Amino acid sequence: MKQIGANGWVGQGAITQMDELLAEHDGLVFFLVDENTHAHCLPILLAELSNLGEYEILEVPAGEESKCIEVVTNLWLALAEANADRNSLLINVGGGMITDLGGFLGSTYKRGIRFWHVPTSLLAMVDAAFGGKTGIDVNNIKNLVGTFLEADEVFVYPPFLQSLPERELRSGFAEVIKHGLIDGEILLKDALQSWNDQNFDAIIEWAVKVKVDIVDKDLFEQGLRKRLNLGHTLGHAVESYFLEKGTPILHGEAVAAGLLMESWLSHLLLMMETEVFHAIVRDIRKIFPDLYWPEKDDVSILYYLQYDKKNTAGTQRYALLKAIGDCVENVEVGLDESSMAVHWYRNLVYRL
Amino acid sequence: MKQIGANGWVGQGAITQMDELLAEHDGLVFFLVDENTHAHCLPILLAELSNLGEYEILEVPAGEESKCIEVVTNLWLALAEANADRNSLLINVGGGMITDLGGFLGSTYKRGIRFWHVPTSLLAMVDAAFGGKTGIDVNNIKNLVGTFLEADEVFVYPPFLQSLPERELRSGFAEVIKHGLIDGEILLKDALQSWNDQNFDAIIEWAVKVKVDIVDKDLFEQGLRKRLNLGHTLGHAVESYFLEKGTPILHGEAVAAGLLMESWLSHLLLMMETEVFHAIVRDIRKIFPDLYWPEKDDVSILYYLQYDKKNTAGTQRYALLKAIGDCVENVEVGLDESSMAVHWYRNLVYRL
Repeated sequence: MKQIGANGWVGQGAITQMDELLAEHDGLVFFLVDENTHAHCLPILLAELSNLGEYEILEVPAGEESKCIEVVTNLWLALAEANADRNSLLINVGGGMITDLGGFLGSTYKRGIRFWHVPTSLLAMVDAAFGGKTGIDVNNIKNLVGTFLEADEVFVYPPFLQSLPERELRSGFAEVIKHGLIDGEILLKDALQSWNDQNFDAIIEWAVKVKVDIVDKDLFEQGLRKRLNLGHTLGHAVESYFLEKGTPILHGEAVAAGLLMESWLSHLLLMMETEVFHAIVRDIRKIFPDLYWPEKDDVSILYYLQYDKKNTAGTQRYALLKAIGDCVENVEVGLDESSMAVHWYRNLVYRL
Repeated sequence: MKQIGANGWVGQGAITQMDELLAEHDGLVFFLVDENTHAHCLPILLAELSNLGEYEILEVPAGEESKCIEVVTNLWLALAEANADRNSLLINVGGGMITDLGGFLGSTYKRGIRFWHVPTSLLAMVDAAFGGKTGIDVNNIKNLVGTFLEADEVFVYPPFLQSLPERELRSGFAEVIKHGLIDGEILLKDALQSWNDQNFDAIIEWAVKVKVDIVDKDLFEQGLRKRLNLGHTLGHAVESYFLEKGTPILHGEAVAAGLLMESWLSHLLLMMETEVFHAIVRDIRKIFPDLYWPEKDDVSILYYLQYDKKNTAGTQRYALLKAIGDCVENVEVGLDESSMAVHWYRNLVYRL
């Protein structure tokens, strides 16, 4: 097991570490789970935690739809009913939905109680559980509301991935690819190798380190951290579109689409080399052979761009690549160029 | 005008100071008001602010009822509709309800945008606008949900008090009395004098300083700051009771009741001198001749104690006085003693 940053514990020994820290806790314990992590992950934790006293389980339905006002309101009230106080501990066991929702719950209930994350999806392990971004969606606008508050501890236990469907794993791998493109230390072929071998232990450790190093330098996203938005400006637009349509796709599936479109913009606007652009498209498509897109003539995804958090009024600001490992934040991009990227991608999907 | 702490501006020149800082702002501006501050305070501000460009006004109904999920959800969506982004500025103009609600709105919209407070009630000027406590009520549980985030600037302009009804002023004066009891530098007779003269400029400056000095040492309320809860443990219970009953009373009216009951507890448990106890009761009743209480035989106020944020599970922790100016936090009090305090107060109201 490896400690990464001040509060990250990654590896087979993560649960043992959690048990040691639980021994120092004196107060109520609440687990936030969805029905999947309740069935598949919580029992593994409970079997290993010898220092856990009384606890309560808060379960929400799986899926992004639970990141909403109604669910968080019920959770606030459930904590109040159970007399949760400032000495209580909330342990969020799940994917990015649970860490986002649970982080918001923990950072706002009684103006903040302690919370730990136990990410169970690849996406949450390498991305969502670190960096203190919490959030809920309002009217299908992703993370319109949230806070910046880091989990007190994060325990990353890779064996949880064994219970995941392949589609979930693949989705999380989009963030691994993103970290590879930003950092450049691991090349796309290493990521591809890890994917083909379905062996993630080493790549998780590395991907967490990329994230934590950036967040440590810029928690509140004043500059550097905006690089982590690579693939997410258009990715979020795609995700919001499908959510509103009532046929949600996974976050990483949207990010994969975003990475493709933003690689195209990188090529167009930052002179990223043609060979590199083609390699990125080729390798991402090896991992994501199925691409999601609305009806062929529907480009209304552009409508969702305006709500992106990274934008100043009226303009879009992207993180783009000059080259692999050379990411630039705050690149102003006009709606025309964004629109061209969307059309390029539409044509890729429909092989026009 | 006097600067108090890093971000407090108190006095006749506060609006001029605000105008100077507005000149440095580059982004959208939103004013949050209720119908009263919209009519009586906002016009005064708008007339004085020469550096204000375009702005939008967000109005909510006056009253504690607006500190709820439904209202804050509408405000989040209104900001999104207006394309508010991380460069936007939210200016909260109103009493404690507006600064609590607006602080929560500003600290959660897109994970936090800049916000300023322009307190217009005495309570907000000396208390609510400082210290970073934001919050909303859920199911009538006061401030069940909130954040700790200080306003970027606070502008205290005493002439706003001239538009206030006497009942509002009196309510705010409860916090002035509380600061007097905690700090001891201003004696009750000075406070009484200020009340009788209806001259508040000097006492506001002093009361803000008491608050800011404590908060600077303990923003997250780990210890010292809990002293500011004097009068609020039972005060909040009284306030929640009347809110749930559908006949809300003002916060300061509840705090005045809380100060009386907790002075009784201070006398009982911390040996506060009998003469001091009697003087506190006498002077508070000079300012608050009308005391609020449920039906004579209804002591269900005790039910609301359990939800108080300051309590560890199962016990009540009060801030109490050994003497005026000698406040102690974290005094554990059993339900029996709390119940006796409630009965003592009931008897005071009904002159049993």
